[in-house]
Order: sequence, then C-alpha cells, then structure tokens
Amino acid sequence: MQKKILLDHGSGGKASHELTRELFREEFKNEILDPLEDSALLTIKRNRFAFSTDSFVVDPIFFPGGNIGDLAVNGTVNDLAMRGAKPLYLSAGMILEEGLLFDDLKTIVQSMKTAADAAGVEIVTGDTKVVPVGKADRIFINTTGIGVMEHDMDISGCNAKPGDHIIMSGSIADHGITILCQQEGLNITGAFQTDSAPMNHIVSQMIREHGNSIHVLRDPTRGGVATTLNELAASSQVGIRIREKDLFIREEVKGACELLGLDPLYLANEGKFLAFVSSEASSDIVEIIRRFPKGKDARIIGQATEDHPGRVVLETTLGTSRIVDMLHGMPLPRIC
Amino acid sequence: MQKKILLDHGSGGKASHELTRELFREEFKNEILDPLEDSALLTIKRNRFAFSTDSFVVDPIFFPGGNIGDLAVNGTVNDLAMRGAKPLYLSAGMILEEGLLFDDLKTIVQSMKTAADAAGVEIVTGDTKVVPVGKADRIFINTTGIGVMEHDMDISGCNAKPGDHIIMSGSIADHGITILCQQEGLNITGAFQTDSAPMNHIVSQMIREHGNSIHVLRDPTRGGVATTLNELAASSQVGIRIREKDLFIREEVKGACELLGLDPLYLANEGKFLAFVSSEASSDIVEIIRRFPKGKDARIIGQATEDHPGRVVLETTLGTSRIVDMLHGMPLPRIC
Repeated sequence: MQKKILLDHGSGGKASHELTRELFREEFKNEILDPLEDSALLTIKRNRFAFSTDSFVVDPIFFPGGNIGDLAVNGTVNDLAMRGAKPLYLSAGMILEEGLLFDDLKTIVQSMKTAADAAGVEIVTGDTKVVPVGKADRIFINTTGIGVMEHDMDISGCNAKPGDHIIMSGSIADHGITILCQQEGLNITGAFQTDSAPMNHIVSQMIREHGNSIHVLRDPTRGGVATTLNELAASSQVGIRIREKDLFIREEVKGACELLGLDPLYLANEGKFLAFVSSEASSDIVEIIRRFPKGKDARIIGQATEDHPGRVVLETTLGTSRIVDMLHGMPLPRIC
Repeated sequence: MQKKILLDHGSGGKASHELTRELFREEFKNEILDPLEDSALLTIKRNRFAFSTDSFVVDPIFFPGGNIGDLAVNGTVNDLAMRGAKPLYLSAGMILEEGLLFDDLKTIVQSMKTAADAAGVEIVTGDTKVVPVGKADRIFINTTGIGVMEHDMDISGCNAKPGDHIIMSGSIADHGITILCQQEGLNITGAFQTDSAPMNHIVSQMIREHGNSIHVLRDPTRGGVATTLNELAASSQVGIRIREKDLFIREEVKGACELLGLDPLYLANEGKFLAFVSSEASSDIVEIIRRFPKGKDARIIGQATEDHPGRVVLETTLGTSRIVDMLHGMPLPRIC
C-alpha cells in the first residue's frame, strides 16, 4: 500500500518530527532552515523590505505545466517582485488532509525547491498541520516572503500617470484556462499549460536599466488583466485604454475560452506582469523584457489617460470601444 | 438570513475587494496595510531578524477563553519571542469555507486585532481564499511574522547547558484540555480555558535584565511540555530532569485529564514558555516573570544534566523516576 499522510504527522510528536526532518529539511536544504527552530534567523543588511503572503488552494493540485508547489513559490516571489523588491526568503505553511499520498507531497515539495532555486530564494521556515479526511482538500500551501528593496524607488499601484504606456509581459489567460479545463474535465491535453514562473529576474533587470521610468508593476493573477487594470485605474485615479489587437492570446487558449464562453481578460496569469512606464522608455523596456525567454512576447497593450479616471476601456478589433468592468465574482473557484 | 461567505469573496473580483477593504483593512487598520498592495513595505533599521510561520486549523474555532484568531496571532508572536526577537509585523492568510458566517469571521478578525494590539504588532499584509463547502472546515488561518533581534545573543534550542535550571512560566495543559473537552463534547464549562497569550513582553524584560543567562526559550505548544523537553534534550544533547511536584497543573485540569486518561505533560500550552537559564540567575529570572500577570505562577521545574543526554526523566511525587518519551503521534488532532 502506498504511504499516506496520517493525523500523527501533524501531532507534534515523533511522526511530525520525522516528516519535518526527512522530507522538508532534506528537500529544502539550507543552513537557515537546518536547525529547525521555531523561527528562522536572518541577517539582512538593508532597511527597506517587502513582505507578502498568499495561500494556495488550487484544484487540481497537479496540472499541465506545474503543481500547487511551484505555483505557491512563484506566486509569492512575484508579489514581492511587483513592489520592486528582490525576493530572498520564503516560509511554507502546509495544511494536509489525512490520506494525502506521501509521494504526492514529496513531488510537491521537490517542485517548491526547484521553483525556489530558479527564483533565487530560500525556504527557511515552515509549519505542517494535518486535518482529518474531509476537512481540507488534499493540500493547501501558504507561502509568505521577505524581499529587500535595493533602491529607493516607489513602485506602487498608486503611481500610474496619464500618458504611461502599459506593457504586458506576454500571453494572457494561460494559467486560468489550464486549471479550468482540468476542473471541467475537458481533455484538451498538450494544447496549453500554466505560465507559472518567477518574474523577479526580469523585473530586477528592468529596474537596473530603467528604474526611474517604471511606475507600476502588478501580476494579473486572480481576476486576470481586466480586474488588475481596474484596481490600478482606481488606485492611481487614471483612465486606462487597452487595444484588443495588441493582447496576445494563444490560439488554443482563445479556442478553449470560446468553447467555455469565457473572456480571457478575466482569466488568471501566474507568470506575467503588467508594467506602467513612462512613454519615452517604453520601447526600451519592452526590449529588456524580451531578452528573457519568459518575456519574449512582451508588448505595449495600451496607455493610461487623463480621461475617464477609474475606468478601463478596450478598443476592440472592430474599431469600437467598450468598458471593461470588474466582475462581482468569478465563475472560477480555486484557480490558485 | 445571516450574511455568509461566498465563493465570490475569494474570486479576486468586486466581492473580494469589498471584503478586503471593509473587513480586513477596516479592522486591522494601520498605515502599512492601508494601500492594499501585493506586498507590504517595511522600514526596519536592524540587520538581524526572526521569521516564523504557523497555520491554525483548531477545531472548534471558538472555545473558552479565545478563538482561532487570537490563537493565530499569539502563536506566531510567541514563536518569534522564543528566539529572543521583538515581534513587529504579521501577515494573515485566510482560507475560508463557503458558507462561513460573516459575523463569525468578523469576530475572529476583531480578536486578531485585539491580540495584535496586546502584543504590540501590526498585521500588515494578507490574503483570502474561499473554497467550496466541504473542502475546508470553516476557517484556517496562517500567520507569518517578522521580529527584530535587538541584541546579539543566541537563544536557541541547541544551547541548553548541563546545570541549567529549567523554568516553566506557569500552569500546564490549559489550552490542550480546553480544546479536547470541546471536541469531546464534555460540558465542564467555566472550569478552565485556553491560556493563549503573547509572551513577548515577559521575554523582552527577561532579556533586558538577564539576557546573558538565558540559553533556551521554547513555548510548549503541540505535544506539550514532554515533547518540547524531548526536542531540547536532543538538540542540545543534555539530559533533562524535571520534578513532578514542581509542575503546576490546575486542579480542574488535573481532574479532566484523569477523566479522559490523558497525561497533562503532553497537552498543548499557548501562553507559556520553558526557559533554560544559568543556575545563578534562575531565581532572579523567576522573579522577573512573576511580575507579569501571565507569569505569576512561574517556577523552576528541573534542570539540565550531563547524565543521560537526549533523555527526559521525571521524578514523580512518589519518589520514583520515569522516562518521559516523545510519543509517535497524539490522540489530539487540531489542537491549534
């Protein structure tokens, strides 16, 4: 019989300690985690930090291109990067359902380590709880991260300025449509996969070369590009115009969206970002992003305006304009 | 009908934003949280930090003396304090089950704020996910915290020295027995309640007055005093002897433990700590702890020895000795 997670693994007794030592410490392997104290001890010679948390409850936990583990690492890495911070350290809080296959947990933990290495961060502290069968859904992961600000710029959702060009770092809706097709049991295998990836290396290069021209960075996850742009229009009190023809949607993704009757503008992305940058620097910045494999499809998709502050308007390929509103809810539970 | 949490509240759309703005931002109220960016921005003029995470899945979510909210804040505050750090900032990651009563969530959030104020910390960033009915159990909370080291001492589970006196800051088993009686439906109302409380103010006073004499601090949560002492005996490679007669167990707690056939040494505490201190300073340090209402029952319960490294021995009130081992698992799921 396959080894499974038991309530004992969350009890604080010997079984818990074995799991912590033999799986988490073994896989995440680093000097800070190693002593397994209640807190990790960090030495950071900076005064400004970014601090961000995210819980991941995605269903299914394995999906084309990734699993809940790398998603959880990339998600928090990207939230830190979107403030212009260099992500350094993550915590991992696991809630496991009794009966989870040990091998599934191991695969997830190994993916977390691989993702952490790719992003250049360390998982330095953690916690594991186990709840009885039926009281959670296999595994939920919280990651919380600390990043350092290596500059004194203020990259923030409040800083979009009329005239700013809006860059989207690549295709849209990949993650959302991937998860949704899995949830709906649609067998469109191989056609697309999650875009989950760390954005911090691209962002730090942008900041190094063009820091002062970057006003806003934001990753359009839950709620997609439409929701994120609405948030930014509201917090910066600017209008936003985007051009449908400049949005890059993979053909297969477009097809699946049409099949399901979904607007890709509202579907989650997990390895992309939106940047509001001064218009003089925008083509340079697009070039920087395109140097990276994960940014090769970057393009300018629109601009911030003085008109209609708080509103997002889409210029359609038909030449008409329509307001892109924030939805009340979304027909997409557990996308991340 | 009472207002309930819906899947929409976790979708990233308008309903999510309303919940974040009107409940979390309103209740946690502080300047760092206020802009609701993906990351909180912190300015901390120190180089050494403690970083700790804990997920809370306690069942029931309301219990005598507290609820999952204050428990989650105190738990992480205490983990930071146990490294000798001054806790400053917390994140709050919420996983909500569709159908959770809005008023219950509000009560929990308000308790988190009250607990944060009592500990002197701010909740500066957060995240909320909602899963469908039956995919979680009402509410799970992850708190992750950052504290600063205001000194260069190394208080760690590896630092117990033979001869050290072991101080317990008060009564044992209160939290564990409270939750267990609720889970078992035992109606022993009013007899006892959780001891959940922040320990950081007591600890910082101890460090100020006697820092160099403090070798180990640890809060005996899951697994209780017995498990924690076993961990410390192993990581410091010392023997540990404790005296049954010096353990303070409230009469009502003792009675309930006997009724349920449980050893109070293995039951969780959420507002207590164990300190290993040099023998010369131990009575002074007990006096410092006793100045605080939550430390008034502090006492020396034993010492670290050169003999039997890695082993914990209890001198019983009958004059015999017995080994106190770490259990494999615990008959107590979801105690915190």
